[in-house]
Amino acid sequence: MGITPQYISAKENPSVKFYRKLSESKKTRTQEKCFVLEGYRLVSDALKNGAEITMLFITENAYERFGEELCSLSGEVTRVLCITDELGKYMAETENTQGVFAVCRMPVQKSWNDFLKKEGAYTVLHQLQDPGNAGMILRTADALGIDGVIFCKSCDIYSPKVVRATMGSLFRVPVLVCSDENDVFYQLEEHGIESDAAVVRDETDIAGERKYAENGCAVWIGNEGNGLPETVSSRCSRRITIPMYGNIESLNAAMAAGILMWEMAKGRKGK
Amino acid sequence: MGITPQYISAKENPSVKFYRKLSESKKTRTQEKCFVLEGYRLVSDALKNGAEITMLFITENAYERFGEELCSLSGEVTRVLCITDELGKYMAETENTQGVFAVCRMPVQKSWNDFLKKEGAYTVLHQLQDPGNAGMILRTADALGIDGVIFCKSCDIYSPKVVRATMGSLFRVPVLVCSDENDVFYQLEEHGIESDAAVVRDETDIAGERKYAENGCAVWIGNEGNGLPETVSSRCSRRITIPMYGNIESLNAAMAAGILMWEMAKGRKGK
Repeated sequence: MGITPQYISAKENPSVKFYRKLSESKKTRTQEKCFVLEGYRLVSDALKNGAEITMLFITENAYERFGEELCSLSGEVTRVLCITDELGKYMAETENTQGVFAVCRMPVQKSWNDFLKKEGAYTVLHQLQDPGNAGMILRTADALGIDGVIFCKSCDIYSPKVVRATMGSLFRVPVLVCSDENDVFYQLEEHGIESDAAVVRDETDIAGERKYAENGCAVWIGNEGNGLPETVSSRCSRRITIPMYGNIESLNAAMAAGILMWEMAKGRKGK
Repeated sequence: MGITPQYISAKENPSVKFYRKLSESKKTRTQEKCFVLEGYRLVSDALKNGAEITMLFITENAYERFGEELCSLSGEVTRVLCITDELGKYMAETENTQGVFAVCRMPVQKSWNDFLKKEGAYTVLHQLQDPGNAGMILRTADALGIDGVIFCKSCDIYSPKVVRATMGSLFRVPVLVCSDENDVFYQLEEHGIESDAAVVRDETDIAGERKYAENGCAVWIGNEGNGLPETVSSRCSRRITIPMYGNIESLNAAMAAGILMWEMAKGRKGK
């Protein structure tokens, strides 16, 4: 851990420029295998859950409040850079920034064999686009003890908006990113895990009546506007729906996912 | 329905000033018994659900796209005011405004006797503060066919943020605002409706194991940070919790409310 001897104020500072590029560009994140965090809580959650923080930027004001704790949590690989409050405002994505920013290394993605357990409960997000929904789903998966979330053709989990919306659950829930649903189906089947497709209406099972057996289960959640494509839903063992008495469009994708994860977690609570 | 003969461009126009004041001030909303709507979808949902729109502001661009439909939906009490695109930007709360704004009259609050049905399913929000959560809960109540939502000491349902977050469900779900939980308990008891308190952990019933009988039920949801005060939860017939295997703080208030409303709706689906 090395602390810069003086406050950085220049927007042209290479580390600051690196942070901004990671924040703005998915391509840079993918190349560098790093992403950014903003805010005391998120950074401290990351450190407590063993994430690798390579750079920690902290403003003069924030140093007084959080400096000691964050520096004691951070490891040897962390470079601590003190920045001016002015520069903090420049780097911030949120309106009332706390003045704490970090560059975090992406965890090495687990192999399918390490990720999938035979009796596990999983959520597959297929073409889910909204960062707020993705974050809410990860938080709920965290609370309900879901064994992992698979992002298939969905929004970038390492975009600042998704990271912020997960409120730290990103560091607690195993996540796997996969660009091909065929791989997901193949691996789930190989591990004896059944797939449920969340659909709005169809000849379906009713959520709440589905019995969960001993073996693993994955619930597939589709895109906010279009749901799951027929090619995906027809390949699942079950099509499952939340019966609605009111306005169907009012059930947001994250809420639907939450209710289905709840049913899955509850049905398998002996695990 | 009267349409202004020319485009209004002045920020000082009395109707525009009235709109802005309603948007910004709860006091004005309460005095005038009116609130504001922004966006085509929200305004058309309001009109389709019989809300009383007294003023409809529409920009030149928006008139081409939505003018005919909105004018045919709106009633005789609606004054249609054409505004310049520039003024539309000034009035907008959202970044990409559609150029459609309305002043809507608050519905007359139902009496308790009209609002509560003996076998109904209700949600009581107690000191809930976040507009996004309030909106998400109203949307979910709408989807699941909850009979009504009671706002007790909670955020203002007529603030532009809450109205926007409800995405039209405000016009479909019966809502009652009450500033005293004693009144709420008294009325629920009078109507034979049982109260469940949503609590994080305690000597409680487990959500999903609670059996819902024939009579009505209301689930009480507390403040985002503090939950329900002991004085409220101890007065409920049951304390009910969502068992969590992971990080308790990860379950957001709206998601918890959604899961409990789902259990309540499902348990009473014969209604």
